[in-house]
Amino acid sequence: MQKYKPSCKEEQDFLRDYNPNQFPPVAVTVDAVIFGIEKDNTDNYRKLDEQSLKVLLVKRDSYPYKDCYSLPGGFVLAGETFEDSLQRTLKNKTGLTNVYSEQLYTFGEVDRDPRMRVISCAYISLLDTRKAKIKDATWVDVNHIKELKMAFDHENIIEEAIRRMRGKINYTDIVFHMMPEEFTMSELQQVYEKILGEKLLAPAFRRTISEKLEDTGKMTGNAGHRPSRLFRYVKSKK
Amino acid sequence: MQKYKPSCKEEQDFLRDYNPNQFPPVAVTVDAVIFGIEKDNTDNYRKLDEQSLKVLLVKRDSYPYKDCYSLPGGFVLAGETFEDSLQRTLKNKTGLTNVYSEQLYTFGEVDRDPRMRVISCAYISLLDTRKAKIKDATWVDVNHIKELKMAFDHENIIEEAIRRMRGKINYTDIVFHMMPEEFTMSELQQVYEKILGEKLLAPAFRRTISEKLEDTGKMTGNAGHRPSRLFRYVKSKK
Repeated sequence: MQKYKPSCKEEQDFLRDYNPNQFPPVAVTVDAVIFGIEKDNTDNYRKLDEQSLKVLLVKRDSYPYKDCYSLPGGFVLAGETFEDSLQRTLKNKTGLTNVYSEQLYTFGEVDRDPRMRVISCAYISLLDTRKAKIKDATWVDVNHIKELKMAFDHENIIEEAIRRMRGKINYTDIVFHMMPEEFTMSELQQVYEKILGEKLLAPAFRRTISEKLEDTGKMTGNAGHRPSRLFRYVKSKK
Repeated sequence: MQKYKPSCKEEQDFLRDYNPNQFPPVAVTVDAVIFGIEKDNTDNYRKLDEQSLKVLLVKRDSYPYKDCYSLPGGFVLAGETFEDSLQRTLKNKTGLTNVYSEQLYTFGEVDRDPRMRVISCAYISLLDTRKAKIKDATWVDVNHIKELKMAFDHENIIEEAIRRMRGKINYTDIVFHMMPEEFTMSELQQVYEKILGEKLLAPAFRRTISEKLEDTGKMTGNAGHRPSRLFRYVKSKK
């Protein structure tokens, strides 16, 4: 933004004398909800590997909520935008760089942090787990979150992120952030099903999704599977 | 939220000794982008009154940006949730009570306020201007915002809100917050057109919108107009 120019001497004095410490202290954090679809290896070699929707968590090593799981996140520093803060935090806590993120929601409940009032601006990302090099963080099946000790209101933030993602996958192209360059129709349908938490009818799915796909002309060659056509994502032809 | 219980004496001491003033001061505000469709009276009595998309603004009476227009908003107080803060601020600055709002986006640019670092959590609302009793605030045609002196990054916030509203009106029912109980198809189509900023084809519009509407069995009786069927909103029949 352009540097603000006071309109007159009176305003100059007002700004010079303004006391930023007049308000009760509040801190701002960013937290990242990073989703990926990961294959759970199956013994049945003829079956499409089972996949599940996972979220990236870190284990806290300090108070409060020590040893609990939390979203990767941290305090926004002076002079840092939310996006800068998010990328710095993700690099430090998960090893991820240049993560494409969208703002999800800002959580401002009064007692959500026992240290002081902390406002958290949460971001959501969808990643291709095969490309993402992770360190010090763990992919956790979203269906197993309830079995973990979670820090702060992060379980709630993850639920909100899942709702948002479900709302968005049918009218945006965000899902392709999770896909490899080339994929089969069944693989894509399974990703949709894992996100939506329900089975889809193949013919209807293929009809609606086809305008976002391009046939690569190639086929899969995995032993044990019947060869399947490989597609790639193209921006909607409409 | 449940009151946090420290896990041990060490954590108890950690929390007791935690210094919330260790961070550079930051303040949090809420700002409301309130949209309404208002009729601009026309001289042509046979024509459907022209309407335009308006946003509710207040004139600032103190530094900074004194005498500029801004969104109604204010500082979030200690112990106050964002939603509480929003309703209190709206009541004080516009007279509106119980406004249905959704969080839009949180604006955290470092220099957006010349007083200190101020994070603004913006909310979006759609109102039926005929029902809304406003005081000390003005409905401004969104196409005339650029002609006004606007405070802070509020012009930018309004643009973001318009984008969000355009994205949402086709797959949610938010538009009906702006409509009276009963309305004609032409009135509804005009509201869509004002929000989208483009003309729609009547047959296509009627086809897609019909599942959200119920025929009241009544007709308009305005002199000078051909009588039109009156509809009301019903939750999607699907």
